[in-house]
Formats: sequence, structure tokens, C-alpha cells
Amino acid sequence: MASTLSCAASDLAPLLGGGPNSTAMATFLCSRFSAISDQFSDTSYAINNTYLLFSAYLVFAMQLGFAMLCAGSVRAKNTMNIMLTNVLDAAAGGLFYYLFGFAFAFGSPSNGFVGRHFFGLKEYPSPAGDYSFFLYQWAFAIAAAGITSGSIAERTQFVAYLIYSSFLTGFVYPIVSHWFWSGDGWASPTRSNGDFLFGSGAIDFAGSGVVHMVGGIAGLWGALIEGPRIGRFDRAGRSVALRGHSASLVVLGSFLLWFGWYGFNPGSFLTILKAYGTSGSYYGQWSAVGRTAVTTTLAGCTAALTTLFGKRLLAGHWNVTDVCNGLLGGFAAITSGCSVVDPWAAIVCGFVAAWVLIGCNKLAEKCNYDDPLEAAQLHGGCGAWGLLFTGLFAKGVYVDEVYGGPGGRPHGLFMGGGGRLLAAQIVQILVICGWVSVTMGPLFYGLHKLKLLRISSEDEMQGMDMTRHGGFAYAYHDEDDLSMKPSGVMMRRVEPTSASPTSYENSPAV
Amino acid sequence: MASTLSCAASDLAPLLGGGPNSTAMATFLCSRFSAISDQFSDTSYAINNTYLLFSAYLVFAMQLGFAMLCAGSVRAKNTMNIMLTNVLDAAAGGLFYYLFGFAFAFGSPSNGFVGRHFFGLKEYPSPAGDYSFFLYQWAFAIAAAGITSGSIAERTQFVAYLIYSSFLTGFVYPIVSHWFWSGDGWASPTRSNGDFLFGSGAIDFAGSGVVHMVGGIAGLWGALIEGPRIGRFDRAGRSVALRGHSASLVVLGSFLLWFGWYGFNPGSFLTILKAYGTSGSYYGQWSAVGRTAVTTTLAGCTAALTTLFGKRLLAGHWNVTDVCNGLLGGFAAITSGCSVVDPWAAIVCGFVAAWVLIGCNKLAEKCNYDDPLEAAQLHGGCGAWGLLFTGLFAKGVYVDEVYGGPGGRPHGLFMGGGGRLLAAQIVQILVICGWVSVTMGPLFYGLHKLKLLRISSEDEMQGMDMTRHGGFAYAYHDEDDLSMKPSGVMMRRVEPTSASPTSYENSPAV
Amino acid sequence: MASTLSCAASDLAPLLGGGPNSTAMATFLCSRFSAISDQFSDTSYAINNTYLLFSAYLVFAMQLGFAMLCAGSVRAKNTMNIMLTNVLDAAAGGLFYYLFGFAFAFGSPSNGFVGRHFFGLKEYPSPAGDYSFFLYQWAFAIAAAGITSGSIAERTQFVAYLIYSSFLTGFVYPIVSHWFWSGDGWASPTRSNGDFLFGSGAIDFAGSGVVHMVGGIAGLWGALIEGPRIGRFDRAGRSVALRGHSASLVVLGSFLLWFGWYGFNPGSFLTILKAYGTSGSYYGQWSAVGRTAVTTTLAGCTAALTTLFGKRLLAGHWNVTDVCNGLLGGFAAITSGCSVVDPWAAIVCGFVAAWVLIGCNKLAEKCNYDDPLEAAQLHGGCGAWGLLFTGLFAKGVYVDEVYGGPGGRPHGLFMGGGGRLLAAQIVQILVICGWVSVTMGPLFYGLHKLKLLRISSEDEMQGMDMTRHGGFAYAYHDEDDLSMKPSGVMMRRVEPTSASPTSYENSPAV
Repeated sequence: MASTLSCAASDLAPLLGGGPNSTAMATFLCSRFSAISDQFSDTSYAINNTYLLFSAYLVFAMQLGFAMLCAGSVRAKNTMNIMLTNVLDAAAGGLFYYLFGFAFAFGSPSNGFVGRHFFGLKEYPSPAGDYSFFLYQWAFAIAAAGITSGSIAERTQFVAYLIYSSFLTGFVYPIVSHWFWSGDGWASPTRSNGDFLFGSGAIDFAGSGVVHMVGGIAGLWGALIEGPRIGRFDRAGRSVALRGHSASLVVLGSFLLWFGWYGFNPGSFLTILKAYGTSGSYYGQWSAVGRTAVTTTLAGCTAALTTLFGKRLLAGHWNVTDVCNGLLGGFAAITSGCSVVDPWAAIVCGFVAAWVLIGCNKLAEKCNYDDPLEAAQLHGGCGAWGLLFTGLFAKGVYVDEVYGGPGGRPHGLFMGGGGRLLAAQIVQILVICGWVSVTMGPLFYGLHKLKLLRISSEDEMQGMDMTRHGGFAYAYHDEDDLSMKPSGVMMRRVEPTSASPTSYENSPAV
Repeated sequence: MASTLSCAASDLAPLLGGGPNSTAMATFLCSRFSAISDQFSDTSYAINNTYLLFSAYLVFAMQLGFAMLCAGSVRAKNTMNIMLTNVLDAAAGGLFYYLFGFAFAFGSPSNGFVGRHFFGLKEYPSPAGDYSFFLYQWAFAIAAAGITSGSIAERTQFVAYLIYSSFLTGFVYPIVSHWFWSGDGWASPTRSNGDFLFGSGAIDFAGSGVVHMVGGIAGLWGALIEGPRIGRFDRAGRSVALRGHSASLVVLGSFLLWFGWYGFNPGSFLTILKAYGTSGSYYGQWSAVGRTAVTTTLAGCTAALTTLFGKRLLAGHWNVTDVCNGLLGGFAAITSGCSVVDPWAAIVCGFVAAWVLIGCNKLAEKCNYDDPLEAAQLHGGCGAWGLLFTGLFAKGVYVDEVYGGPGGRPHGLFMGGGGRLLAAQIVQILVICGWVSVTMGPLFYGLHKLKLLRISSEDEMQGMDMTRHGGFAYAYHDEDDLSMKPSGVMMRRVEPTSASPTSYENSPAV
Repeated sequence: MASTLSCAASDLAPLLGGGPNSTAMATFLCSRFSAISDQFSDTSYAINNTYLLFSAYLVFAMQLGFAMLCAGSVRAKNTMNIMLTNVLDAAAGGLFYYLFGFAFAFGSPSNGFVGRHFFGLKEYPSPAGDYSFFLYQWAFAIAAAGITSGSIAERTQFVAYLIYSSFLTGFVYPIVSHWFWSGDGWASPTRSNGDFLFGSGAIDFAGSGVVHMVGGIAGLWGALIEGPRIGRFDRAGRSVALRGHSASLVVLGSFLLWFGWYGFNPGSFLTILKAYGTSGSYYGQWSAVGRTAVTTTLAGCTAALTTLFGKRLLAGHWNVTDVCNGLLGGFAAITSGCSVVDPWAAIVCGFVAAWVLIGCNKLAEKCNYDDPLEAAQLHGGCGAWGLLFTGLFAKGVYVDEVYGGPGGRPHGLFMGGGGRLLAAQIVQILVICGWVSVTMGPLFYGLHKLKLLRISSEDEMQGMDMTRHGGFAYAYHDEDDLSMKPSGVMMRRVEPTSASPTSYENSPAV
């Protein structure tokens, strides 16, 4: 803005005649233009911070979505446990990300590998970023940990959770986000020194790889090392569904995630007041933001519909929880390219994502891999597809607008943009797989060896809520009063032959 | 804005003396004012798109509200079914509205009856609208289908749902919105050719008619043709309440709808940065937006309180689900006039809406009409009242501000604005009733004749979740383990020796 | 803004030479600068109203959070009752706050004790405030009543609730908000006449005292006068946990409150477009807003973690509902000082808040005080700590920026700001305790004496939902069909003699 309203009184005075009055007049005019320029600057900060803060709040709402989705997808006896992990992802994540995670991720200038400024928000805010940016990135960081907790649900010791979750949020994830999103990151498409990977940089706009694959692959290792839940596969290795306890919570969580994704994807622009090309056009970053909301919507919708009919053919019924998972798979996939593709391409993205998820689930079943939330399949599998999709369908003009630079950037292979972007995307997939595997794999393995990872089979049968978390999550019937009447019974039928003392709902376990 | 900052260097140069320096100076000044004007334009796009996008997100949250409200209002055995329809309203709606619904509704220029541009968002965005507008209108479109699914809940084949929902979202609703909201619509109060119906146009600001009546009347036909659920009326024709399975979900859904209505009503301004009269006043469109939020709030609050005391008198208890329905009835009614009435009038609107709903419910009971969500009564009845209310209470100055034009527009009959607006409102009611009846009525009847509409009585008794959707929505107790051990018991174990009649669940208290 | 873009044609004309052309030129320039200034004014109103309205919507979402938190924290048999009170807090609050509450609170000019303009929003909006401000303050008012309903849950007559809730929202709370938040309030730090209490005024930015203590102390009196629920303490006076019926609803409610708190605390700035010092810097009110979101987050996170480990040590398990309460205690505490402390201080605030809550709960147990939601402990105790915290840790430069004035305002004792702010904070605590006690105490006592306060022990044992609110909140099993069989009963009662295999819950259907 400074440039378009620039005004030098010394240049102007001669044009006004050159006398002392001219100088006064020129000074007057320049002071006014300067004040106007400053007010535009203030206005711009206010708009962009409003935009980013409310986007951050939406992303935060995803944590609630995760909590409800996870709660509904596990058996009732482990509901307290899984919800506690979701609350703590946010709470512990807040502290750790403040203390060092944010510094690792965005503490510019860095060596390209890890940031090293702004620990504890020291010397922050700065011209490079404000509190709203920190809050927004925190809300992203806690999402990754939430994904992982789904994969290893219903059989993981709480202490193990505390350890891996801190490590993931505080170190593993921030490093990845530094590589791909920070202006210093070696693979970033906005790298400040302009030395882009393959002349392109990897495009992972809102984190199909940085967030979803990281969370999913971490979960994959955890779930692999822990092994399946008791009863998940019968002795012949056949899959036995261990259905979650509440489809209502699953739908609630899925819709909340959808709602929050409008902060996740469009919000990743960080600003909304930015002209593309010259000022004064109806088309600008605000349009790109809107387009991103539309591509996100369409990819999710298409994946949901594809899953509906796909599962109808495969399983014979219309299943709402499957549809919800398909929906989320579509979102996870479009998250990488949402800002740089056309709406029609988003439909392709969602269609393929649904089949990727179905395929990953088939594969998981074959391998006797048990992931209560399908998190590795959904966030890992669809996330990886999303990165490839961007390498295939990114549109040149959008890449130039969104990522800036001199124009003519590499873009999607199918859009005539050459193979360099696709190569960068493949590198990103490999690097994330490698990095998360070499960090989280050994961590889970070590916990396993130290007998800190998996709960005892007694705990697993009884449910962690009773044994570790102070009681069952639900009490629809009033034990309190009933327990006062000797003959009271609540819900169900019981073994008449049992001689042992009656236990009610929340009977103290320990 | 262009006009107030207009600047012609050729006009200006003479004022500066007329020499070559004068021309340079004039050019300098005009370029600065032009740049300022462009920056205001950018700023304005950024603000208005931010406003509209976040409003769209709120409206989308209403879909979650509908899902929870519907889920809680049906019996547990049909929860999966109804939630699936809510998810699909959004998902299928997304695709269809992208492919053709939006084009039918807003594809200007049109013949006044149906739009014909922007199929698949081709040549969109344009100066006439941006992606945010598409997203906002999509969120509205899916709301209408959601209303209908409530009316025919618990007894409709899933295939029938897929058919009517696509037809409603993709065709019936878009046409209606074209008539009343598009700049080309024959009854629109913003008609670009200025040839308003009765010199006024119908005022349905956020859709008491376009959304709520359309959804409600479609539901009315569906529910009439299907007939009541088994057991809803006993052999003597007396009404038997089939209570929903979770009041918590009903309250959750109602609050979410309330929350989302702040996007629905105030958001319908589409922009917030617009001065009324000259610039620089504290009063502008931002005030009208706030007033709309206030009238919406007051109408809902009043209707809720009226229902509370009304039902206390009629039914003898204080019922939260009735209060929630009353609340929503107040919202559905104020949706038409929210932007053009004073807060005190909104209280009148809500008070009457509560009695309209109570009356419609009485009538429905008399006619043995069964609508599990009271959707036809609530959205149809209160929606129609809302249109009349606007014709009675719309304030002249607000109509002029909100709908523009030369001033002195027809407004509410009771506010001294004559009967022309009221006449237009009545035409709207009749036209919507007619259009929806001639489209949706035959569709439902045809499905009925083809045996595609209603489920079998076996399915109905058992619940659709078990027979069609892969299982019951809830499993609070751990069957999975039980199924493995013949004698296993989970939560409890019961005294067989109890002689007293075992009481389950909520043994009747009164 | 006027000042920086001021332009007087009469001053300017001489600088341009002084002839008639000069006057025309000067007029031209001044009209342009004036138009620019007006457009900045419009822009500013649009941005600030957008900011405030969406913040108000978030605060409103807290009411949903309260409803879910309360519902989950009571026994299932009282769920309808408590949710109804939450819906009515919003609904009745809307009417009363419109009619007189807002006038009492913000009807300037006043006598410093109670406002007296804007009854029924008469002569509103005005330059002093717009509809968005009313909506925002309404959303605050209903929060206070929601707190109180938690304290007296499960044993209070519905009529008593209607009375105290109206009195609290319509009178007690507005008066307090007038004292501390209105420009006329005797203890306000923004007092327009500059005569601050102790030269400082009390700093309660978003209402640790005005909202949380008011609600908490009102609840304290109610719960004290009612006495504990039946069974809450055994004959020996030992505490017996009466666990809430759904931890999922508790977590849902807590997360929604967290989400809404981003409207509550950062939103309390009311505007976001305001430069601190000169315009054109990256640092302004938008940064302070962001910082407030960060301090809020960190206080809650720290309190949650502290509670997690604290309760693990004290109670032996990892409890999610305790963690949620700790989280909310952290939020209630930081609410006073959120805008004027550094992030590190927020961590201190949250850490102490967790222990304050644990301590208050211990004390309550000792005194046989029963508060189903721990509302008095949480909102009263942590709220009071929050006021003290601000008196200790408020940073000088932030106080000056946020509260304006000539600079050098008293600030936190530990930050070198002297004891005057702390003194004002202590006065606020005492005054709120006194005011709420002398108003709500006698009210509850009077209701008690009139036998209008507590329900009968029969009602209490059976649950209010059955006896007063039309039925139990949940019906997971299908009574409806049962009711068709002659022996059927509404909620259910089961035939012990039934020979057929009774099917429970999810008996496999297919």
C-alpha cells in the first residue's frame, strides 16, 4: 500500500509552483496521504486478524468434533478415557506449543530444519506474525495428536498417551510444519530465499500431509505395535466389528469437524484482504478463500455420496457412520490442494478419496490391523492421496495467485504444469512417512518394551473407565436411589445363577 | 464509492493554474484518489466476504442442529436413518446445487421464472457474486430438505428419500428462491427492472416462505400420503404420543439452530459495509444487521415463553421439548420480516407464532395427521404467519433502507404502509402452496403408487436402523464381549430372587 | 480519524495561491479528504460490528455449553428440568434484558448506581452503542443466571427458578455490570468523569466478578438455604458422590464453553479496529485481542493439567469431568485480567485456579454443602481469585493501552504498579459478595419460607422430569410398541413371567 499512496513533499512542491506556500501545501497533502495509508494499514490488520482469529476458533471446534467422533466410535466402557485424551490434546498442546512447539515450527530465521525463536512467545508478536497466528497454529497442532489417539483407542495406557502426545505435539509435528509451511522450510513453496524444491516446493495448503498424514502414520505405528483389541479378530482371523456405542455422537462429531474445516482450509490463507493483480477488482484473495470453502465442501460431499453407494453395494445397507468416515476422508484429501484447484477437480478428489478409504480398510482387515477410528486409513491414506491429487490437478493461475512469485510456477501434471510439483508432492509423502516412522515408531516400541503401552487384558475387558478413570461415563438409571432399595434393578437381565454380590453401574473398581 | 472520490485530471489542472506542472500535479492527485478508491473497494470486498462466509458457516451449523433435533425427536430405533438423511441433505445438496440448483436460482439474466447460467459454477465468480454467495445459498438449500425429512420420519423408504430430496433441493426450492430472491424474480422486491409485484414485491427477507414453507408443505404432502406411524393413533383415533428418544439431543439441536439462525437472518443482508444515506454516520447496514439479530432473538424468546405458559395451562406440565418447538416456531415466523420490523414488533410476531403452532398441532391431531417433528405445522404454519406478519408490521423507513429504491415503498398495513405489501405476501403464500403442491404432491403420490414410499410394517415395528442401516445407533452395554462369553455380564448382574416385578428403565412414576 | 484527515478549505486556499481557482481547488481537496474520512468511518463501523456480532454469537453458544454441561452433570431423572432452565435463561433473559435489564446496566447518563435510559431499546441505537452491543450484553446476562441454576439443580421448584432467574437477570446482574463496566459506574476503570476508585477503578475485563462471582454467590445462597440433595451426605455426614448421568454431555458442554469463551474474553474489547499510539503499526488492538485469546487458552489449559495431576494424586484416577471443571475454573479466573496480563502470567493464574477449586471443593464437602455443578466453588471461588490475580499481575503498558487515559495507570502489585489496583479489586470482591447476598439471600430465604423453593422429597426421589416435566428425557428402548401390547407400560415395567426370550438393547435383528 505504501507504494500506491507514496508522496514526497520535495517532489511535489515544484509542481505547485515552488514557493514556501507550495512546500506547505505539499507537506499538507503528503501528510494526508500518509495518514490515509496508515489507516488502511490499521484496517487491514483489523480485518485480517478478525478473519484469522475466527478461523482459529473454528479449527478449535474441530477438537470438540474429534472428541465426540472418538467417543461415539468406541465402546461405552472406554468413553471417559478417549474423551480425556481429546481434552488433554488441547490442554497439554496449549502449554507445549507455547513453550517450544511454536518456536520449532515458526521461529524464523532458522536453518531450514527447525525454528529457534519465540520460545514462550518471547519477542512476539513481531511484524512477522501476531498472536492470532500462534493461536491458529496451536489449533492445528492439537488436531494431529487427536488423530493418533483414535488409532490406538481402547487399549492404550494413559501414561503412554501422555508421553506420545507431548512428543508428537511438541516436537514431531512442529518440525514437519516447519519444513513445509515456514518461510524457511526446505520444502516450502513460500520459501523466502526462493530456492524451491524442484523449483516448485511441495504444496500442502492446509495440511493433508503436515497434519493428517503425520497423525495417521503415528497412529499406524502405535496400532501396529499394540496389536488389535481383544475380540476384534476371531481365532480364524476373521474380522468382528466392535461397534462404537453411539452413532449420534459420531454424526455430531462429523458435522462439527465439517463445520471446523471451514476454519482449517479457507483459514489457511491467514489473510483475506489482498488484491490479486491490481486493486479495485471484484476478484481477490477473498474469492480464493470462498473457492477454497467450495472445493472443501464439494470434495467432502462427493466422498460421502460415493461411500454411501459404494458401501451399499459392498455391505448391503445404508450406513451413516461409514458415510461420515467417507466424508472426512474427502476432507482430509482436499486439504492439501483446496486453494489451488477448481471445484470440478474437488469432485474428482472426493470420489477417489472414498475408494482410497474403502481400499485401505479392506487392506487393514486383511492384515488384521485394528484401528477403532480408521484413523490411519482415513488421515494417512486419504491424506497421501490428497498430496498426489494436488500434484495432478493444481491449476497454474491459482498456484501463482496463492503462492505468489514471478508467475509461471510448476503446477498439476494433468493441468499442463509439468511433473515438478508432483515430484515435490511425492517427496513430501516419503519424507513424512520416514520422519514420523523414525520418531514415533521407536517411541511406541520403547513404550511397548517397557510395558507402558498396552493395558492389561483385565482392564481391556472391563473397560478403562471403570478401572482407571473413576467410573462409567453413563448412568441413565438412577442407581443412587435404587441402591437404597435392596430389590432394585436397572436395565437388564442378569444371570440368575450368579452368586457373587451384585455390582451396579459405577461400582468402585479400585 | 467511485463517485465520491472521482477525480478528473483534465478538470483539475485548470484549477491549479493550467501549466504543465498543473497537469502533472492534477494527475498525481487523481492517481492517488483513484488508488484510495480501489483500496476501499478491496477492503469492502474483504469485509463483506468475511461477513458472508462466516454467516454461511453458521447456516451450515443449522444442518447439525437439524440432525440432532431430528435424531432426538424420533425413537431410538430410527436414529441412524434420520441422521443419514440429514448428512445426505448436505452432501447430495452440495453436488446438485453446484451442478444446477444454483443456476436455476441465481443464474441471471433469466426469464423471471428460472435462472439459466452458472451451471457447475461456470463463469463464476462474476461481478454479480462470489463463491461466498454460492456457499451461503447452498447452506439455505439444504435446510429446506432437512425440514421435509422431519415430517416423514420413521416410516419412509430410504430410496424415496433419495429421490424427493434431490428433486426438492435441485429443482423445487431453487425455482422458488429465484422468484422471490433473484434480481430477475417476478415477485422479488429487488427486481432489477423495477416492475414490482403490486408495486411492492413480496418481502421474505431470509425465507419464512422460500425455505420454511417450502420444506413444510413438501413434508405435509409426504406425511399425508404416507399416513401416520403405526401406533400414533389408537383404534378410536385418539392421539398417542410416540415420544422421541432423547430430549438432550432435542435441546442440543434447538440451541444449534438458534446459533445458526444468526447466520440465516442477519446474514441474509449478504453485505455489512454499506452506508444508509450519506457516509460517516454511526447508523448503517451494520446497524440493520444488528437489529435483525435482535428481532430474531426476541421473536424466538417470546415464542418460547408463550409456549411454556400456554402448554402449562393446556397440558399441565413444563415441557422443554415443547418450548424448543415454540422457540423454533418463533424463529421461522420472524425470518421473513426480521430486517424490516422493530424489536417490539418481533415480540408480537413470536407471541402469535406460539399460538399458531399450538393451533396447528391441535388441528393436526384432530385430522389424525402425524408429523414426528411437527415440521409442517412449525415451518409451514409459522412460516405463513411470518409472511403475513411482515405485510402487517414492516416499517417504511426500514423497507426503504434494506430494499433500496427511490423511497416511499409500500410497507406494513398496521404501520400505515397500505395493503399492497400485504397483498404481495398473500400471493407469495398462495404461490408457494400451489407450486410445492403441484410438484411434490404428485412425486410423493407416484412413489406411493410404486410402493417406493412407505416401509413395510415389519420394518417399522423393528426400526429401520436394524433392517436397513446396519444396526442400532446405541450400545451402552458391551454386547461385544457378551457375545463371546455365554455367561458374561457387563454392567450388572441382577438378583434373580427378587419377587417384586422387576422394573426396567423408568418404571412409571405416576 | 477526523483529526488526521482534517481539512479546512479556507486555510488551504491561500497555500494554493489565493485566487478563486484556489478556493475551488481547496474545496475539491477537502471534500475528497472528508469523503475518505467518512468512508473510513463506515469501514470501521462495519468491521467492529462484524467483530462484536460474531463474538456475541460465540457467547450465546456458551448457553448451549451450559445446558449440556448441566444436563450431563445431573442425574438422568432431572435432565429435562435442568435443560428447561437453561433454555429459559436465554428466552426470559432476552425479554427482560430488552425491557429493562439493558437500561439498568448501560442507560447512560446515570447516577453511577443504576442506568435509566434505553428501556425497551427506546432511542437506541445511538452514537454510544449499536444493536450489536445490546446483543452482546444480553448474551452475558443470561450466562450469570445459568451459573446459578447449576448450584441449586435437582431439588428446586420450577416456579422458584422462574422467580429468581428473572430477578437475577433483570435486576441484580445489570446493576453490578453498571458499576464496573458502564462509563458511569462508580468503580469502572473507564469512568467518563475520570474519578476512578482509588485512582484506578477495578479491572474486571470480561467479568470474573461481574458475571462469574455474581452467578456463583447467588447459587451459594440458594444451595445453602435449600440444603443438600437427598443422599448426598450419609447419616454420618460423609460425602456420597451423586454422579451425573453422562460424561459425554459434560465434555461436550465444556468444549462448547471453551469455544464460546473466545467470544466472552477477546470479544469484550467490543472493537478490534483501533491503533495503539500512532496508526500504521503492526501492533494495535487486534494484537491485544489475540493476546487475550492466548491468555485465556493458556489459563484454561494449565488449570486442566494441574487438575489432572492434582486429582490423580488425591483421588487415584484420571478423571475427565474433574479436568473439565478445572479447565472452566481456569477460564473463570483469567476472565478478569485476560486483556492486561502476559501469557506467562496466565499460566500462573490457571495453576492457582485449579488449587482454588480443589480447595473450595474440599471445604464444601466439609461443610456438607451440595452444589451439583460445583458452580459456587468454580465461578465464585475461581472468579474471586481472578480479581485478585489481576490486582497482582496486570502489566502497566497493557492497562494503559486497553483502558486508555493519560498513561501511568495503577497496575499489578507484583508488576511494580502499586497497591491501588489491588485495593480496587478487593473492594469489588467485597461489594459483589455484599450486593448479591443482600438481594439474592433474602429472595431465596423468602421463597424457602413460602415453601416455594424446594421440591418434595417424593418428587426428588422420583425425579422432576416424571413429576413435573412430562416424562423422562430418554427412551432408548421402544416403549411405543410395547404400549400396544396390553401389558405395556410407558417407560416400562417388565413381565417377570414372560417366557419368550426378552430382547434387550441391541439384540441382533438380522
